[in-house]
Amino acid sequence: MSEPPRAAAPATTVTAGALHRFTRDVFVRAGMPEVDAAVVADVLVWADLRGVDTHGVSRIPMYLRLIDDGDLNLTPSIKIRTETSASILVDADRAAGPIAMTTAMNAAMRKARDAGVGLGLVRATTHTAALGYYTLMAAQEGMAAVALAASMPFMAYHGTRAPGVSTNPLSIAVPGGERGPVVLDMATGVVARGKLVQARKTGQPIPPGWALDRDGNPTTDPQAALIPLPLGGPKGSGLSLMIELITSLVVSNPIIAGALEGEADGHRHRQNGLVLAIDLRRFGDPEVFRSEVDRVIAALKALPRAPGVLEILMPGERGARALAARTRDGIPLPRPIVDELRGVAARFGVGMLPSAP
Amino acid sequence: MSEPPRAAAPATTVTAGALHRFTRDVFVRAGMPEVDAAVVADVLVWADLRGVDTHGVSRIPMYLRLIDDGDLNLTPSIKIRTETSASILVDADRAAGPIAMTTAMNAAMRKARDAGVGLGLVRATTHTAALGYYTLMAAQEGMAAVALAASMPFMAYHGTRAPGVSTNPLSIAVPGGERGPVVLDMATGVVARGKLVQARKTGQPIPPGWALDRDGNPTTDPQAALIPLPLGGPKGSGLSLMIELITSLVVSNPIIAGALEGEADGHRHRQNGLVLAIDLRRFGDPEVFRSEVDRVIAALKALPRAPGVLEILMPGERGARALAARTRDGIPLPRPIVDELRGVAARFGVGMLPSAP
Repeated sequence: MSEPPRAAAPATTVTAGALHRFTRDVFVRAGMPEVDAAVVADVLVWADLRGVDTHGVSRIPMYLRLIDDGDLNLTPSIKIRTETSASILVDADRAAGPIAMTTAMNAAMRKARDAGVGLGLVRATTHTAALGYYTLMAAQEGMAAVALAASMPFMAYHGTRAPGVSTNPLSIAVPGGERGPVVLDMATGVVARGKLVQARKTGQPIPPGWALDRDGNPTTDPQAALIPLPLGGPKGSGLSLMIELITSLVVSNPIIAGALEGEADGHRHRQNGLVLAIDLRRFGDPEVFRSEVDRVIAALKALPRAPGVLEILMPGERGARALAARTRDGIPLPRPIVDELRGVAARFGVGMLPSAP
Repeated sequence: MSEPPRAAAPATTVTAGALHRFTRDVFVRAGMPEVDAAVVADVLVWADLRGVDTHGVSRIPMYLRLIDDGDLNLTPSIKIRTETSASILVDADRAAGPIAMTTAMNAAMRKARDAGVGLGLVRATTHTAALGYYTLMAAQEGMAAVALAASMPFMAYHGTRAPGVSTNPLSIAVPGGERGPVVLDMATGVVARGKLVQARKTGQPIPPGWALDRDGNPTTDPQAALIPLPLGGPKGSGLSLMIELITSLVVSNPIIAGALEGEADGHRHRQNGLVLAIDLRRFGDPEVFRSEVDRVIAALKALPRAPGVLEILMPGERGARALAARTRDGIPLPRPIVDELRGVAARFGVGMLPSAP
């Protein structure tokens, strides 16, 4: 769907539908099959709807760069390398992360229906985007789910002054009752890399303990901050390393070692993933499960609040509210993102996004 | 094996063998079958060997209290509630944690050999002790493994000033090559509760951000510190909550809600567990896996160190060294522990521990 580009725009608000069509059309014009482009658009726009702007359409230019560099394969032949009664190992052939991860989660859910638990391993994909999308797929089908992703080293390993591990994220979700599912989606860094990028753009000093500069010295200068620090020191970098070991090494596609050793292809973008689904129906009454989720949430929300805290939030609750508000009111896109997408629109001859009414 | 009690002793060093016999004999005299008592002794003494003193024989008095209170069942009839091709749900009937968790991990490993992945769920056990013991069981059999445990609320949920969740721990282990397996075993609090207990004993002020006092105010006074704070605020308490949801609620034995609501039995000690084993042979060459583990460790250890850091450590490395040293030199037991164990020895007519030669 093609519309004429609009004049130089400030920050603008767009509907999820328009953003989805735009994203899909860009990837189709770039050479991706339409059905795949729609999945990538689903996952990126979902992140924008949830308020996770660092994992939404702001990634389109990066995805296009990966395509240009030959790191993201537009027409992968995704193959099953290993299949057992409860697991599947998918060789993603450098497919876009959302394609590989939804494939793996759908397979894990199929396995879980038969075997109680299903494991989906993903070898050689690219940026996996927001993991909460995949664990919520399972939660919406009445399953509990876990997702891990392993990527290139850019966070300090505890005790070092250099990038050694990624901020490898981890997501866990379960279905809920009237309050909806609960979904945790967290990186193993003190803060997501996106927060450092944001601070660089706004010029706001960052708190001590967030990052090191290029020489490995602690800094609060957002322009100098380069190497994020791990969550809780050894815990965060240890967890990140274990994600590399239990994901990349299990699928025979190590990422960290080659990058640190300076291997020829060691710095090419690549990611691996692991998803797990547990079919709750096999272990108890799913309706009781749902009501127990609501019950523990109610109990936690009734606890006395710390000074200055207006409300006690559950994992994913802020995102669920953003989704409701942004579905209704549209998705605000900051000026720099709009400018980048304008360039993308021009390159691929795709109509620029219309502002929401 | 019974020896005459020794005269009032200071801190002392004992051999692992003597400590194992002592622990086993105590639980046998308390009424536990000898085979089970040996497993409990294995797991507790292993923690002492690894230097995790908070999860070793210092727990014997607590275990005996659980027995006295009827919370720990000495002669449980452990039943399989659900069994699928890749999973098992074990109703532990209030068995000692080490009995229930080793049962579940053995079952998960059996399932993983057939199905690639095996899930073991544990309903209604007691203190699960050091989770690294169970994940290393799998690593020693060439499997990657995960273990989670859910217990009573005593840590602050982010944004509250009251106990809302546990410091629910998480362990991940993989086999290694010449450097041995890698095992992460971490709690979701900033620090393990044992560290607060230690600080209370030594009187050392604790760093800000570790704990709240009984009124929910931040404190650095070790005597006032009561409520541990979560790792990284919302990340730690969110992860802890997800462990309750994906463990306790899946096995239909919720812990948090009842405790917070003040239910009649809400404060009775109970725990639930989840273990997962992945059979590496099904997904790749296990020898390559092992050498890749050594390779990434070597790359991380070669990174430039932060000021004052003498060595870059891997998850579980300190514990592996302690195990080697304490196996050779014996396990040092602090005076207060020795005094407590002396009382235990007297109560059960078990000979007190001989010092290592």
